Amino acid sequence: MIYVTKNITFSASHRLYNPNWTHDKNEEVFDKCNNPNGHGHNYILEVTIEGIPNLETGYVIDLKKLKKIMMENIEKHVDHKHLNYDVPFLKGIIPTVENIAVVFWQQLENKIEDGKLFKIKLYETDSSYVEYFGEPIEIKTFDNL
Amino acid sequence: MIYVTKNITFSASHRLYNPNWTHDKNEEVFDKCNNPNGHGHNYILEVTIEGIPNLETGYVIDLKKLKKIMMENIEKHVDHKHLNYDVPFLKGIIPTVENIAVVFWQQLENKIEDGKLFKIKLYETDSSYVEYFGEPIEIKTFDNL
Amino acid sequence: MIYVTKNITFSASHRLYNPNWTHDKNEEVFDKCNNPNGHGHNYILEVTIEGIPNLETGYVIDLKKLKKIMMENIEKHVDHKHLNYDVPFLKGIIPTVENIAVVFWQQLENKIEDGKLFKIKLYETDSSYVEYFGEPIEIKTFDNL
Amino acid sequence: MIYVTKNITFSASHRLYNPNWTHDKNEEVFDKCNNPNGHGHNYILEVTIEGIPNLETGYVIDLKKLKKIMMENIEKHVDHKHLNYDVPFLKGIIPTVENIAVVFWQQLENKIEDGKLFKIKLYETDSSYVEYFGEPIEIKTFDNL
Amino acid sequence: MIYVTKNITFSASHRLYNPNWTHDKNEEVFDKCNNPNGHGHNYILEVTIEGIPNLETGYVIDLKKLKKIMMENIEKHVDHKHLNYDVPFLKGIIPTVENIAVVFWQQLENKIEDGKLFKIKLYETDSSYVEYFGEPIEIKTFDNL
Amino acid sequence: MIYVTKNITFSASHRLYNPNWTHDKNEEVFDKCNNPNGHGHNYILEVTIEGIPNLETGYVIDLKKLKKIMMENIEKHVDHKHLNYDVPFLKGIIPTVENIAVVFWQQLENKIEDGKLFKIKLYETDSSYVEYFGEPIEIKTFDNL
Repeated sequence: MIYVTKNITFSASHRLYNPNWTHDKNEEVFDKCNNPNGHGHNYILEVTIEGIPNLETGYVIDLKKLKKIMMENIEKHVDHKHLNYDVPFLKGIIPTVENIAVVFWQQLENKIEDGKLFKIKLYETDSSYVEYFGEPIEIKTFDNL
Repeated sequence: MIYVTKNITFSASHRLYNPNWTHDKNEEVFDKCNNPNGHGHNYILEVTIEGIPNLETGYVIDLKKLKKIMMENIEKHVDHKHLNYDVPFLKGIIPTVENIAVVFWQQLENKIEDGKLFKIKLYETDSSYVEYFGEPIEIKTFDNL
Repeated sequence: MIYVTKNITFSASHRLYNPNWTHDKNEEVFDKCNNPNGHGHNYILEVTIEGIPNLETGYVIDLKKLKKIMMENIEKHVDHKHLNYDVPFLKGIIPTVENIAVVFWQQLENKIEDGKLFKIKLYETDSSYVEYFGEPIEIKTFDNL
Repeated sequence: MIYVTKNITFSASHRLYNPNWTHDKNEEVFDKCNNPNGHGHNYILEVTIEGIPNLETGYVIDLKKLKKIMMENIEKHVDHKHLNYDVPFLKGIIPTVENIAVVFWQQLENKIEDGKLFKIKLYETDSSYVEYFGEPIEIKTFDNL
Repeated sequence: MIYVTKNITFSASHRLYNPNWTHDKNEEVFDKCNNPNGHGHNYILEVTIEGIPNLETGYVIDLKKLKKIMMENIEKHVDHKHLNYDVPFLKGIIPTVENIAVVFWQQLENKIEDGKLFKIKLYETDSSYVEYFGEPIEIKTFDNL
Repeated sequence: MIYVTKNITFSASHRLYNPNWTHDKNEEVFDKCNNPNGHGHNYILEVTIEGIPNLETGYVIDLKKLKKIMMENIEKHVDHKHLNYDVPFLKGIIPTVENIAVVFWQQLENKIEDGKLFKIKLYETDSSYVEYFGEPIEIKTFDNL
């Protein structure tokens, strides 16, 4: 197996809070991430595909194609958006970097035709990121978020 | 002269629009930056001080002190905030990276006791930044923003 | 004045040699940069515009527009190209990073409508770059290159 | 086990095409990577060794020695070269980043005396890279490339 | 499982030598790292936690808490210190980046309450780093170091 | 004029204190930088040369030559050293990043044969650096340091 990776960036805003909690509880848990008007980040999304290089091309997957899949299925929906309000596939999810990564996996999983989706790595800042390998994980959807 | 520089980061959201313009005009000029719910960035603020090193310390300015000035006067007001709504000293300003840099200069100019403020450099993304050296520039304050 | 900067990247190959010199002289001066089959780099092009922010937009220049100008006038001509053979506006020039920067200035100078072209910064590697501010400089065009 | 990693950079050019295909087929598949005069990159090669630190040195492998092995066996053969024409151990291989990584593994595998080669990571650009862990993979050698 | 990572930096000095060896043997093995007055680095410490996001917060671990644990248990003990002399928990250890990573694991392992410590990654320079996943490894403590 | 820049890195340790001051005064001013056993950094040294490209080479200065000058006159003296004790040309100077930059200028000024030394930029950490353009500045040499 070889693992090939492409990354893209997008700029978005979000707010972290649990709609079933009191203001004080949200402040205690989410602190400055709970700012009602939100705040934002330049996210970096890295997508890794595992596979065997095609003998006639030497490609596991054409990285130009992979980039196009990432742009069509993720970037155009989230870039310059508010992740709590503007993105249908994130609706009702607390947009932590963990939860976003899980949803991005679901968005991309069936779009990869050459090789297999292996990892989503998502940077929220230069010093904070998550990695997700697609193991089934439950995340909660709030009707009132 | 020697020029010493410190940088810090902060995460914030903003929306670019001119309240005196129609929706269509704002869309045409600001495009995706005009998303009503805003979007965000990890900003990097670089502050450069010019001066002559003190003979007894070898410092133009103690960079720990400079960082503290930047944290007290800028970072604590803008980090994890919405720049259109949450920051008194940015109130009424279209928060382009140009305008923010000018206002940050005004915030910092009189706080530097060793050396002299020389430059504000503000990154909005890894590929976009502005530099401002303090020449008087008019920027507009909108009452209805 | 405020200085706004945008950067883009492109990947290209080149070979450094003077067609009026012997092989030995070229080897002595250009060393491994004279490899006949060429070698290549991921270049980073930074373009800086100086100007005063428009009162109604807060922009010196819309960075989306600046990026488009850089893509149309530079990137599409040089990305994934051999700089000695494939780029009409570089024809006959020894493609050192110095000479390329001067030619890029000529390509961009009249395309900027908001603000004024102030600086071209061109990285050849992470540890090597040039800066050019548009002062008239003679560079040589070789008919036999 | 501990995993120790060293990286080095090199600048090279390459062209991607399959000599058994028509021009049109190559254009369709490899697009701008098929430019006949080639294009180039600043590659970053990361080599990871797994092992247990020696009790008397605290080293899995002396990173100065690892760097020397990388320079002797890889860098001096590929830096400032055209990967299609100038590198005997890449002769006949379509020089995709996947195929290059596999060949680099073969070049380094038997040269590591302390610890064991664990991973080759090869960046072609800041946003594209592959990782290879040495599982046997068939890659094709073309006589007419 | 999801893997969340935070990184911090610290600046420290160290000297590599084995007190049971002759000066010549130390010179031969550790070379310039054996400089008696030491030398130093800006280290980057990355800590990765594995776990499942809490349904009510979307967090595997609050990264602000993780950072605090890293600052309290590592950074405040090693930043602006000499790793051979000033850090009780490193006393007697040859402070290679491998050995430091193992000791940092021991310092952090029981401090993580949400999720589980998965990886320590420690950069000594931009081109050298180690990764450690907590498998039991013997490292030697010298009484005379 | 064109400005060409090369950067190199080195790892060193230092301690900041004024030998004419009391321990308490040094603690107050230099704080953790006054740790008696020192601490260290990965420094990045950028050297910028101004000049006009030679018509026959397209070079202001051959960057391979500039790198060699930087390695011979700076790197080999400071890499893996303690800047207070091990470097003759820094003897008696409080090794702040400002003072080091001034001394580096003196070391390099007469070694540049093509073009003219224009700027020394010295990073102490990723977030702290100084720039020096060679204006005469007095720095103090302490006999008892």
